[in-house]
Amino acid sequence: MSEILIERSADGLAPWRSPLARALHRNRSLIYARYLQLATVRPDGSPANRTVVFRGFRDRADALGFITDRRSEKIAQLAADPRAEACWYFPKTREQFRIAGTLTAVMATDPDPGLRAERSRLWQGLSDGARLQFAWPQPGGDRTDDRAAFAPPAPDPIAPLETFVVLWLTPDRVDWLELKGDPQNRTRFDRLDAGWQTRAIDP
Amino acid sequence: MSEILIERSADGLAPWRSPLARALHRNRSLIYARYLQLATVRPDGSPANRTVVFRGFRDRADALGFITDRRSEKIAQLAADPRAEACWYFPKTREQFRIAGTLTAVMATDPDPGLRAERSRLWQGLSDGARLQFAWPQPGGDRTDDRAAFAPPAPDPIAPLETFVVLWLTPDRVDWLELKGDPQNRTRFDRLDAGWQTRAIDP
Repeated sequence: MSEILIERSADGLAPWRSPLARALHRNRSLIYARYLQLATVRPDGSPANRTVVFRGFRDRADALGFITDRRSEKIAQLAADPRAEACWYFPKTREQFRIAGTLTAVMATDPDPGLRAERSRLWQGLSDGARLQFAWPQPGGDRTDDRAAFAPPAPDPIAPLETFVVLWLTPDRVDWLELKGDPQNRTRFDRLDAGWQTRAIDP
Repeated sequence: MSEILIERSADGLAPWRSPLARALHRNRSLIYARYLQLATVRPDGSPANRTVVFRGFRDRADALGFITDRRSEKIAQLAADPRAEACWYFPKTREQFRIAGTLTAVMATDPDPGLRAERSRLWQGLSDGARLQFAWPQPGGDRTDDRAAFAPPAPDPIAPLETFVVLWLTPDRVDWLELKGDPQNRTRFDRLDAGWQTRAIDP
């Protein structure tokens, strides 16, 4: 019989935050350890999957932040269905986090001032080159031959462009697999009304 | 106006095979360059996403091979909806392939002798340790405390266990993004009746 824990940790963070923070720290020498794959569902019901860059946690919350272009397909997808599953593999420590939850898109017009402030903060933290991409032509459109379209005037470094969207993934379930161990260790975290349930499961 | 090519290459392989083969070759020093993330859809319509290991192409075909356990959730998922999208990021060359298509599961009872033979070949190519995992307890079940359950007798190295399943992903669409270039290069391949259409698109 496996041990089942229902907990809300002392610091108010979900119990999967600590192994995830440890993985980020131990893999910090690899820039791409901050890249993960985010799956959503297209309006026709088929799965979509792309690499995104982890931009940090939401202040005092368990949501994972990403940025995207308002004109990207995933914005249309999540308007129809906000469910997502991130798959995050850490090469150095050989562990995987599958993080299922709901995506929230924060645009310029968001009614929540706190979310708008975090959007501005993320924009201000980008490099000039990264900000410039939000002024490029429509992603996924036929190739624009006019090179000047990719060299627009530098956007304001303080006020985000309208195309700049922050995505927050709020997890309901996390499946953590460590490839080390014999057998491998696998832990499942489920969000319940009372807090997070933690269970050891078979790999 | 972008150039559009409809082609069937001289060697009969799809046009995305050559950049993908080049990426595999250039990233060959990283063992995890053969790991990719495979998204499917759960019976409730939500996305699922997990890391799988690329096991090679199907003989004389454009399908990508993976292996899995018949008792895994993805087998139930693809029985209900075979659509999938693989996202494959190559860290060394900084390029991404998003590969959308249909999954086929090949089990012991498959009526196609060629597919059964490829299943046996993949089984025979596994390490003893990898084969053993197909004799472990149900993946995802409550943690089995009995360590002996994870040390069963070694399976026959020639005849695959019943739990051993080969998955073939047959692509309909490939989106190839190279992060190098200014702007970045992005190419989309679509399978049409007449062959593959290749288009340069905006990143």
